[in-house]
Amino acid sequence: MIETDICIIGAGPVGLFAVFEAGLLNLRCHLIDALPQTGGQLSEVYPQKPIYDIPGYPSIRAADLITELEKQIAPFHPTFTLGERVETLEKRGEADFLITTSEGTTVAAKAVVIAGGLGCFEPRKPELPDIEAYERHGLDYMVRDPEKYRGKRVVIAGGGDSALDWAVYLADIAGELSLIHRREDFRGAPDTGNKVLALAEQGKIRLFLSSTLSGVGGEGSLQYVDISGLEGSPTRLETDALVVLFGLSPKLGPIETWGLNIDKRAIEVDTRDYSTNIPGVYAIGDINTYPGKLKLILCGFHEAALMAHSAYAYMNGGKKVTLKYTTVTGISGF
Amino acid sequence: MIETDICIIGAGPVGLFAVFEAGLLNLRCHLIDALPQTGGQLSEVYPQKPIYDIPGYPSIRAADLITELEKQIAPFHPTFTLGERVETLEKRGEADFLITTSEGTTVAAKAVVIAGGLGCFEPRKPELPDIEAYERHGLDYMVRDPEKYRGKRVVIAGGGDSALDWAVYLADIAGELSLIHRREDFRGAPDTGNKVLALAEQGKIRLFLSSTLSGVGGEGSLQYVDISGLEGSPTRLETDALVVLFGLSPKLGPIETWGLNIDKRAIEVDTRDYSTNIPGVYAIGDINTYPGKLKLILCGFHEAALMAHSAYAYMNGGKKVTLKYTTVTGISGF
Repeated sequence: MIETDICIIGAGPVGLFAVFEAGLLNLRCHLIDALPQTGGQLSEVYPQKPIYDIPGYPSIRAADLITELEKQIAPFHPTFTLGERVETLEKRGEADFLITTSEGTTVAAKAVVIAGGLGCFEPRKPELPDIEAYERHGLDYMVRDPEKYRGKRVVIAGGGDSALDWAVYLADIAGELSLIHRREDFRGAPDTGNKVLALAEQGKIRLFLSSTLSGVGGEGSLQYVDISGLEGSPTRLETDALVVLFGLSPKLGPIETWGLNIDKRAIEVDTRDYSTNIPGVYAIGDINTYPGKLKLILCGFHEAALMAHSAYAYMNGGKKVTLKYTTVTGISGF
Repeated sequence: MIETDICIIGAGPVGLFAVFEAGLLNLRCHLIDALPQTGGQLSEVYPQKPIYDIPGYPSIRAADLITELEKQIAPFHPTFTLGERVETLEKRGEADFLITTSEGTTVAAKAVVIAGGLGCFEPRKPELPDIEAYERHGLDYMVRDPEKYRGKRVVIAGGGDSALDWAVYLADIAGELSLIHRREDFRGAPDTGNKVLALAEQGKIRLFLSSTLSGVGGEGSLQYVDISGLEGSPTRLETDALVVLFGLSPKLGPIETWGLNIDKRAIEVDTRDYSTNIPGVYAIGDINTYPGKLKLILCGFHEAALMAHSAYAYMNGGKKVTLKYTTVTGISGF
């Protein structure tokens, strides 16, 4: 059992900065995230993209912002449980919560902060009957280890960055590689799209454009996919592996069942302190909603500051802490 | 007459960042500040001090934060009236305001944003009868041009950073330099305090510690000061110049008379958009108050973002603007 002052669910930029604001008030934090690394969407979805609206940074790469936030919170030694999804929240008493993850990790905390962004990212799946039967039996929604596909017949479905990047990468590894995309143009980076077209001309990728995945089949494990084009009957393609890369779709997940007031997949909060309807449970960043809400990282930073002061009072019998300025006092780590 | 979309009163960090958020919505800004430079307190009071709680900056010097914010807003070409204090606000109609400054500059704007920090900084003055008669006649509350004191007999009163910094600087310039401080210890940086003590030992500064300025006098201009120590009668010291550096004290000033709801020298706002009781007039940063308010720069940044979206709707007949992400669209300057 991990024991801490504040359990922060979500290790994106807002969850990370919450550690800093809590640390200034001498509160320790433990963070849980379903992704295997910190940074949330910034690490997972757009690490190389510049962000222009972080105050004081005319431009900063998403991955660099996470690096700087990690440096900023280092004096307060946050601890992490990564790659596990939160499942249950139990309020055992005032300032006494127990959180359990998908892997059975338990965290006891005096306050809980949900900084879950848009929620857990889950892969978008093709709408085909029995598709789930082939998951982990030839059907994957992400490439964990490319070596798994060496020498095999592989079909990739999708036309975004992930699909194109992996098509180029696996063209040299797979025994036979096919790419199915429902349009004539790719959604991903034009450069990579051109590489895919060049590999198709060299015969290293078999392209099915304006085509959809219309069926999957096999005994026990995946053995073929059916591909429907604009005309004629579907083409049946024998394959060892199908990798569907239709992107990630955010889900609120188990948090929906915790008894929180939810409006359109966001948690309703009070703007005085970003508290939810459960005393001691806060929601900050993109996962919350209130009148005037803008889903901006910089707004989550503000929410984290007000949350920390309220959480301090909540776990100290209502005692308020006086705001001290870091320009005057500096930072005292743990 | 200057015409703009938003007139921002106060060019500190929050006023500057408001230009960015307004610019993203294609709104132009004009800023007015009583200080002769941008940056507010960060430039005037603590330019060299590191700030530790700007999200994404483990540490940044106050002056550097202002420099970065100026770079960030440059694409939106803000215009400035510096060194003038706002005096009057007239609402001529919906989305039609007229602002006038102490120097008679007029600005017509569709919305007004008060980002005035703690207000106008005015020097703290010694409580002595007739002290005002000597202002600009030998008595100064700031050092504008150190050369003015070359070869003269100078008395500095105060024990904070400004007093110590100028005592060290003027020790080489003044013909004779005395420093009066009411305590035995200085309030300013210990390093500078030690320099002052060393200069006193070398006979370059005459120190009056645990002493107060108890009188000033002279015909037409300042000719002497009286200094009272712990014991005995006051010492009369002949001097050409007295520089009182007791710090700056913020005043709300003429803004108090504009009909805004004010609570303890701060302007009451609605947290949905940081609007005041006058439609079209907003207050952001340290100058506003609401339940849960923390006087942090990072909170002012959030307030600026919500204000900009509301101001856009206010001046466009209630039409809301869709939030676009800079990671997706980049920045389009004017």
